[in-house]
Amino acid sequence: MDATRTHSTVTIDLGDRSYDIRIGHRLLDDPASLEGLPTSTSALIVSNVTVAPLYAARLKTALLTRYQHVHLVELPDGEVHKDWASLNLIFDVLLQQACDRKTVLFALGGGVVGDMAGFAAACYMRGVPFVQIPTTLLAQVDSSVGGKTAINHPLGKNMIGAFYQPLRVLCDIDTLATLPQRELSAGLAEVIKYGPIADMGFFNWVEANMPALLDRSPQAMAHAIQRSCEIKAHVVGHDERESGLRAILNFGHTFGHAIEAGLGYGQWLHGEAVGCGMVMAARLSYALGCVDAHFVQRLTELVQAAGLPVVAPVLDEQDNVGRYLQLMQVDKKAEAGAIRFVVINAPGSADMRSVPDDMVGEVLRASCSSDEKRV
Amino acid sequence: MDATRTHSTVTIDLGDRSYDIRIGHRLLDDPASLEGLPTSTSALIVSNVTVAPLYAARLKTALLTRYQHVHLVELPDGEVHKDWASLNLIFDVLLQQACDRKTVLFALGGGVVGDMAGFAAACYMRGVPFVQIPTTLLAQVDSSVGGKTAINHPLGKNMIGAFYQPLRVLCDIDTLATLPQRELSAGLAEVIKYGPIADMGFFNWVEANMPALLDRSPQAMAHAIQRSCEIKAHVVGHDERESGLRAILNFGHTFGHAIEAGLGYGQWLHGEAVGCGMVMAARLSYALGCVDAHFVQRLTELVQAAGLPVVAPVLDEQDNVGRYLQLMQVDKKAEAGAIRFVVINAPGSADMRSVPDDMVGEVLRASCSSDEKRV
Repeated sequence: MDATRTHSTVTIDLGDRSYDIRIGHRLLDDPASLEGLPTSTSALIVSNVTVAPLYAARLKTALLTRYQHVHLVELPDGEVHKDWASLNLIFDVLLQQACDRKTVLFALGGGVVGDMAGFAAACYMRGVPFVQIPTTLLAQVDSSVGGKTAINHPLGKNMIGAFYQPLRVLCDIDTLATLPQRELSAGLAEVIKYGPIADMGFFNWVEANMPALLDRSPQAMAHAIQRSCEIKAHVVGHDERESGLRAILNFGHTFGHAIEAGLGYGQWLHGEAVGCGMVMAARLSYALGCVDAHFVQRLTELVQAAGLPVVAPVLDEQDNVGRYLQLMQVDKKAEAGAIRFVVINAPGSADMRSVPDDMVGEVLRASCSSDEKRV
Repeated sequence: MDATRTHSTVTIDLGDRSYDIRIGHRLLDDPASLEGLPTSTSALIVSNVTVAPLYAARLKTALLTRYQHVHLVELPDGEVHKDWASLNLIFDVLLQQACDRKTVLFALGGGVVGDMAGFAAACYMRGVPFVQIPTTLLAQVDSSVGGKTAINHPLGKNMIGAFYQPLRVLCDIDTLATLPQRELSAGLAEVIKYGPIADMGFFNWVEANMPALLDRSPQAMAHAIQRSCEIKAHVVGHDERESGLRAILNFGHTFGHAIEAGLGYGQWLHGEAVGCGMVMAARLSYALGCVDAHFVQRLTELVQAAGLPVVAPVLDEQDNVGRYLQLMQVDKKAEAGAIRFVVINAPGSADMRSVPDDMVGEVLRASCSSDEKRV
């Protein structure tokens, strides 16, 4: 057996929408990665101007073993382009090339590409099949599972989208070699997240293996991706459409979204804001008497070791607490105005709770500094 | 019992996406029509500039008995506005009014309004509940069942959309009183359609009751809507996502779409093109030896009695057959280039068949005339 061709598999069990996540080396240009996918005369690779030059040609070569026509659309890179105009570039190509409803879309890139290709697949002729090939750690451990697709609206992030499952996800670890270090750290934030909410054994493993992860050790990376996907799959499998349990995956995200929105999107990466947000949410859990100071300390040190910020920015010199509360109130997880947080009930177990504003204020006063400059 | 408040119900059985179609008088402003819908602080009426002045105020009064905030968005009227720009008007209002994911959308209008409100509901925050209140006969007998929502792309009709089911459909027969006669006839085309494909008993009834239908007799109208919805529900219930059986609902539509596209959308109404298309598809079924000349004659006379065209327009003086074939090849039901038609196997039973081009040409030569001017 050729060791470079082995891969591990996580099965996402969603009845007739079940699919496999394959994690391994050189999956991108291995025709075996495509076995079992539906036949069709055409396929479309959706990528962006950064990722396409690196990997699109190799993927296209593999796809041509299975599809007669393989088209490519390169979207502009970045969250700021996750909008209708970019989405429409995908529809334009599909229609110009007379792609029918059996055409398979391949999303090649990070979370933005995956969200847009997935949403385009959900909508084109009311639904065509798609395959995710996430090329960032964040996308591999987060977007691989859950079926969330979306674009942004000028008045809110991810406001227009669909729950739509891929046919398969290919996590090719080799693509992480080209990932900037800052984006690697941002991806590690979501890896760290799964421990406190679901599995302290995994938290211990991440603590012990953080140097190997930062060094992009393939073995460590493969395990981190697999276990992250397994935990997310377990949670999502119990709550596909986000009515309750699934919300625990947003640990650190309520504070994190406030940081992202308050600084202006693009200042801190999503993973950086989530890393810092987890530290804040751990402090909130401590204030509620659910975890001890040692747990907060361990999480803080792990986030820091991953190269992520643990001190939150001051968003308003006059009324920082008020500004944070205001931003968290418009977060779309708020219903009819009440802010709910994911708190750690006990290490390895999380829950949603409404928390009094004054307790949130205490945490904010202890967590923010005007000196914090991420970029 | 107040006789003006009675209604009949057709249940669309789709597991956990099942819903009721209520057919009756004064459903629009009866708070009882809203019983059992999910609670929420806000609701949004999606209508257009033609229908909103007639009915939006009455609906809003009823909704205010159940929802604290009731917003209204009036879209421009007409198929030409079934695009992203209009859809975005709905998202703008939802976000400006800080509507959360429990907000209920009410589609008040014809097929275009229903398609756009339904697609907006499918996408806003990845899915919010919606209720259909179709105010045209076509929308009541066609869009009420099937969960098809969509917008147009410059390169194709209904190319971007979703399968998304409403929570309830309210067919208020009284709203048909304001419908122009030409649109009434267009709606009758779809009513006529259900007989040949599924139920010749209903065909006999429509034949006998055409004068009452054209006269908008409430009793006749209620029965026509109910039986049409029942038949469509039966077909869709066996094939929610249009993989096979459901295609028989497109009887007359392949020829019809060619007429609409060839003349330019808006020249003939969709129902007019379908009426004429059914006559052509019946002739094709006769050519295949599936039905006798008497059946073709009966269908032709019924379409004509409904006030619909039975002679197709010449789309190209030089090569009319070639132009029709070309237009039918790009119809999205064509897969990899082969044109498939819904043909009547025997009166009351339909099927999909690939038909040789020369047989289609014969039917086109017998059906088209340069003198046919619909508008």
